[in-house]
Amino acid sequence: MSDNRFQVDGARVLADLNTLRGIGTHKTGVHKPTFSEPHMRSLDWLKRQLPEAGLAGEIDGIGNLLGTSAKPGPKLLAGSHLESQNYAGWLDGPLGVIYALEAARTINPDPNAKGAVEVAAWCDEEGHFGSFLGSRSYVGGLTEGDIDAARDRNSDRTMRDALREVGLAGRPRARAERGRHIGYLEAHIEQGRTLESGALGVGIVTSIVGIWQYRIIFTGEQNHAGTTRMADRRDAGLALAKFCVDIDERFPAACGPRTVWTTGSITLEPGAPSIIPGKAEMLFQMRDDDPAVIDRLEHMLRNMATKVGARGPCAVALERIRTGVPAMMDAGFQDAIEAASKDFAGGKSIRMPSAAGHDAQVLSTIMPAGMLFVPSIGGISHHWTENTADADIVTGAEVFVDACRRLLAR
Amino acid sequence: MSDNRFQVDGARVLADLNTLRGIGTHKTGVHKPTFSEPHMRSLDWLKRQLPEAGLAGEIDGIGNLLGTSAKPGPKLLAGSHLESQNYAGWLDGPLGVIYALEAARTINPDPNAKGAVEVAAWCDEEGHFGSFLGSRSYVGGLTEGDIDAARDRNSDRTMRDALREVGLAGRPRARAERGRHIGYLEAHIEQGRTLESGALGVGIVTSIVGIWQYRIIFTGEQNHAGTTRMADRRDAGLALAKFCVDIDERFPAACGPRTVWTTGSITLEPGAPSIIPGKAEMLFQMRDDDPAVIDRLEHMLRNMATKVGARGPCAVALERIRTGVPAMMDAGFQDAIEAASKDFAGGKSIRMPSAAGHDAQVLSTIMPAGMLFVPSIGGISHHWTENTADADIVTGAEVFVDACRRLLAR
Repeated sequence: MSDNRFQVDGARVLADLNTLRGIGTHKTGVHKPTFSEPHMRSLDWLKRQLPEAGLAGEIDGIGNLLGTSAKPGPKLLAGSHLESQNYAGWLDGPLGVIYALEAARTINPDPNAKGAVEVAAWCDEEGHFGSFLGSRSYVGGLTEGDIDAARDRNSDRTMRDALREVGLAGRPRARAERGRHIGYLEAHIEQGRTLESGALGVGIVTSIVGIWQYRIIFTGEQNHAGTTRMADRRDAGLALAKFCVDIDERFPAACGPRTVWTTGSITLEPGAPSIIPGKAEMLFQMRDDDPAVIDRLEHMLRNMATKVGARGPCAVALERIRTGVPAMMDAGFQDAIEAASKDFAGGKSIRMPSAAGHDAQVLSTIMPAGMLFVPSIGGISHHWTENTADADIVTGAEVFVDACRRLLAR
Repeated sequence: MSDNRFQVDGARVLADLNTLRGIGTHKTGVHKPTFSEPHMRSLDWLKRQLPEAGLAGEIDGIGNLLGTSAKPGPKLLAGSHLESQNYAGWLDGPLGVIYALEAARTINPDPNAKGAVEVAAWCDEEGHFGSFLGSRSYVGGLTEGDIDAARDRNSDRTMRDALREVGLAGRPRARAERGRHIGYLEAHIEQGRTLESGALGVGIVTSIVGIWQYRIIFTGEQNHAGTTRMADRRDAGLALAKFCVDIDERFPAACGPRTVWTTGSITLEPGAPSIIPGKAEMLFQMRDDDPAVIDRLEHMLRNMATKVGARGPCAVALERIRTGVPAMMDAGFQDAIEAASKDFAGGKSIRMPSAAGHDAQVLSTIMPAGMLFVPSIGGISHHWTENTADADIVTGAEVFVDACRRLLAR
């Protein structure tokens, strides 16, 4: 058995998370957009913690921080991200990074523990500049042209400018070394209410849902809101509103048990109170881990658009602008988390899909991957009130580190 | 009888309108925002035409051009505006100004014609900086503070800066002289299809409808579009869409024969495809010349909002942000237009309300006012394809000038 030094230290995990909350604090959460000063300071802090875990840390040319181990034996990659959504919570990202750090701190120096945990903080998981740019770079899915084209959605500065400003321009980008890792493990807050409502401590992620996105454009006739009689109108905004209500009425009968769909953006043109909108656009999104369900819903959606367009008075154009690729989590990783949950969470775990995207879906394209969820209070995330009970954070850390030990010991 | 010089010259009317179309041309229409170079050049052109009509022209401190006559006898004020909506038609505004100029050219020098027509080109009827700022200034309804607060909706520059740039800052603003005018007459394109569909030549405006406007805000809960189950959502955008469809279904049973209503603007917050909108706002407008109809509809609207809010899942706040004041056109002016239509348009006229706002509604607050419409092809306006048949333009001019003669002769 290992001595006390190699046990999970819950107080240390909570202290580290609070240290990161103290950098870029916003109310009880944080504001750390990618490449902001607090984001870079958080990376520097993490880099300084790595030697204690037997890791050498390096921030690469896209802002990924990777801590690598010289210890012989199998290596497990673990991590998450340190930047945040704007004015968001303290755990979305840092929780998974600190769990990985804690696993490295307890396992790597332990002469009785087989292998090592290597720690990653992936850059821009929250998509300030793009979609999973950090992990995609690591798996070889990001070209220099992609980086040239990336812009900050907060300020429209280019990613190249941002990299230059934080001193990362010109550094090489770290790439996954074929065969180096037995896989990737990531912990995250659930961001939903499944665990809380079931009084559970751990979610064992079975898959990460795909996101399918559509641009639906209604074209009517822009006209004067006073002189155009109701019977003569071709109001694109009204056609859009009817379509949203139609979706709301028809989808529940055709969707799967966990399908979600959202109209997050609506734009009317010209958007003035005295002008009948001649054009209206909505961005519509569906998520599921079963492409067959999405196929069925997309078919329904296309039929609806065709019928509405044929009936008039507005034309409808529907275009799929993002195609979801559900990512399956490795069965052995799921089993390891479940076994750890039995020992450290009283078996209060559930297998469930993740409805949010995570870096694990990118890593899963080149190695076995697994994910562990801890409960989110009220299901809230992407908001500064996001939180998880301290006891749940500590339990999650114990399960996570034990799962790492089990995976390395196989 | 007057000799040929004092007859309406249809070719001259068409030529003048085409001259104005040649300034700031956009396709077959024009782009002349308030205080743009083409707008100012149009005013300068008009000013140079005034002496031929026995008028002395002056552009005042808000951009109104007023041509005043020294001829003894009654005076009739007539006009419209020369600036345009963005990338809009050639007749919306200029038609009424050139009719007024033609009336002044034929009546003022005619020794047998009683009195004189004075010509006005009101500034900013199209509302680039505010609501009827030019005519409101003339009737005494605009303070210096209102001007301080006015901003260009195209560029956000202040009206003060714009006035300075075009050299009008510091000039006095012309004010209506009590008792000077027997009234105000304005011609305009109909902007609707009533005349065209009835094969009519002239619309005799009975009233100008009031515009009531509402801000309706739906408040739900902003949340993650992946992890928040459908049953747990409080989607403010969906609540708004349902409300729009509700209005569309219920209003026809309660509205008047000419009521129109429009949702011209919808905003979702935060407006991102992966976030459930926590807040949604719509600008809703109703127009009618009968406040009793609007009272009934507003009552219905408020009841709907209360019920939707009580049922949930989103709260609804409804605020009236603009209260319509229907303007009645003078009966004697209507009779004069009708008599002129009998002589010059074969009696093909109809009495009708105006569903669009016009400077005549502002002038009607201090003097008798009348309006005459000519047909709009396809009812199109506020678009560069806006047009009226040349023959209809000439007929309208003859009716307009004859109506002026009749009003001055009373």
